[in-house]
Amino acid sequence: MANAKFDITGIGNAIVDTLAQTDDDVLAREGLNKGGMMLVDEARANALYNAMGQTTVISGGSGANTIVGAASFGAKTAFIGKVKDDAAGQEFTHDIRAIGVHFTTPPAKDGAATARCLVFVTPDGERTMNTFLGACQALNANDVDPALIRDSAITYLEGYLWDPPAAKEAFIKAADIAHAAGRQVALTLSDSFCVDRYRAEFLKLMRDKKVDIVFANQHELRSLYETADFDTAVTAFRNEGVLGVVTRSELGSIVVTRDETKSVPAFPIEKLVDTTGAGDLFAAGFLAGLTMGKDLADCARLGALAAAEVIQHVGARPQVNLGNLARQNGLLP
Amino acid sequence: MANAKFDITGIGNAIVDTLAQTDDDVLAREGLNKGGMMLVDEARANALYNAMGQTTVISGGSGANTIVGAASFGAKTAFIGKVKDDAAGQEFTHDIRAIGVHFTTPPAKDGAATARCLVFVTPDGERTMNTFLGACQALNANDVDPALIRDSAITYLEGYLWDPPAAKEAFIKAADIAHAAGRQVALTLSDSFCVDRYRAEFLKLMRDKKVDIVFANQHELRSLYETADFDTAVTAFRNEGVLGVVTRSELGSIVVTRDETKSVPAFPIEKLVDTTGAGDLFAAGFLAGLTMGKDLADCARLGALAAAEVIQHVGARPQVNLGNLARQNGLLP
Repeated sequence: MANAKFDITGIGNAIVDTLAQTDDDVLAREGLNKGGMMLVDEARANALYNAMGQTTVISGGSGANTIVGAASFGAKTAFIGKVKDDAAGQEFTHDIRAIGVHFTTPPAKDGAATARCLVFVTPDGERTMNTFLGACQALNANDVDPALIRDSAITYLEGYLWDPPAAKEAFIKAADIAHAAGRQVALTLSDSFCVDRYRAEFLKLMRDKKVDIVFANQHELRSLYETADFDTAVTAFRNEGVLGVVTRSELGSIVVTRDETKSVPAFPIEKLVDTTGAGDLFAAGFLAGLTMGKDLADCARLGALAAAEVIQHVGARPQVNLGNLARQNGLLP
Repeated sequence: MANAKFDITGIGNAIVDTLAQTDDDVLAREGLNKGGMMLVDEARANALYNAMGQTTVISGGSGANTIVGAASFGAKTAFIGKVKDDAAGQEFTHDIRAIGVHFTTPPAKDGAATARCLVFVTPDGERTMNTFLGACQALNANDVDPALIRDSAITYLEGYLWDPPAAKEAFIKAADIAHAAGRQVALTLSDSFCVDRYRAEFLKLMRDKKVDIVFANQHELRSLYETADFDTAVTAFRNEGVLGVVTRSELGSIVVTRDETKSVPAFPIEKLVDTTGAGDLFAAGFLAGLTMGKDLADCARLGALAAAEVIQHVGARPQVNLGNLARQNGLLP
């Protein structure tokens, strides 16, 4: 395999997050599924925004968070995603480039606004997300630059791309180009409700060998195999023949292949503030470790470290340099 | 004095903050005065934005932060300030209303954009601010609703209002209306560079009895009296005949009148993250305490509590209900 110019290229929904601290009764009053991600239209987004308290606005997007996290570990990264040329789109573009991510997807000049995710953070640190996809609906296969994908050791795709109709084609195109160039393709299942919407397609992606590395949390994995029993789901996952990475919040993570299982504990934290981005940043550390040639357990440790950083403050982007944090904790030389 | 419909009405620059973690060498490279606030034009603001890393966007504005903080303690509050009807202006408006502040200043329909403050936060938690005043330049005496000021026990004014030319008239108009109605007027000196720009006018405000309560930090107070010696400055301050409140970061605060001095320690913190808003939130707690009839030392304790909350996270608005926090700490019944 030729050397790659980029370690990881992500394709995902380009979203700006609007977060507010809230109480559980607001979730109940607004009919929100705690811990999940719901798609909303613009009118509903406006109504929910009016129901939110004081907000903090931070660039987000699951795949984009992962790519930014990997860049913070020192990986060479790129991102493909669609914003509109509006204030939020400019903020997203500034922020992802500010950490050195190569991001050149042309913004939409007209049509829907840049995507927003309204995140209600409850006192237990759990986040409940409401996404207005906006300009993300305009992402299509033409936005996938074949040279970029061929030049990336890993192409990372978010399951949420199954929501905007044309993004799925971008996903498949990228996966095929990556494999033709001898590269690897990673997928995150994103959300248990997302798995519920696209279960058969996600399973087919694995079974058709379109993806090599799959990230899931325990809820997503149980949803994928429609079982309440975690061990049953893990056994089924192992038999898919992919490199499977399962996160379990404070229970840590397990990495499964057909031949082996590695368990790694969660990284200790002082105070849980906001779980937004926990899974995204776990994937960031894991993928950064993979591209540095770390063994699977060390990849999971880097993931745990990054997840621990991001859940101790508001927002899904790291507030410190993750490479430095890893060195301070003896996880990188 | 008649009962007031509002406890505190603030008049200030309506600003949205864009904060980024940064290193000291960025400050040096960009020629920024660490810990201070500089006014910048739009071109300079854009250049500085491009020099910032990953950002967090949170409503700010010194006086607005204070009013939001007082509301979080349970005070009945209102705010007068000028935004444009753009994305940032809508965010500012949403956020200040979300906590129950009465805010009805009509937004500018054209002209400059809503004000932005680019805040560089260094690893020591210190913040260095660069403000593009934008729509704040349009605030004028017509925006001061006499009935609102007459209905407010305290009118709170920020020294930064001396920067946009017409806001000064709004300030004086409000102070005169408040006093004619038997109300109190409070002023914060805002920033030592601001004091340097308007020293004579700030001294005249006190000596002409336009203000009754004055907040300053130790740097602002030394600048006001052009002395390096803190005790000399305090003695001069005491002789102005106002209720003087001086904050000294980790050294706590002192409250001085012609007759007495009260010293109150800083509230202990676990980890300093970002000092943005420390002085604003101190004033919030102090004023909230005053309107609840607390004695001066207890007012300062409420100020210290609010300042401690806000410096332990990014941004100048509280992330918890300050009334609840005060009750948990035995400072409110």
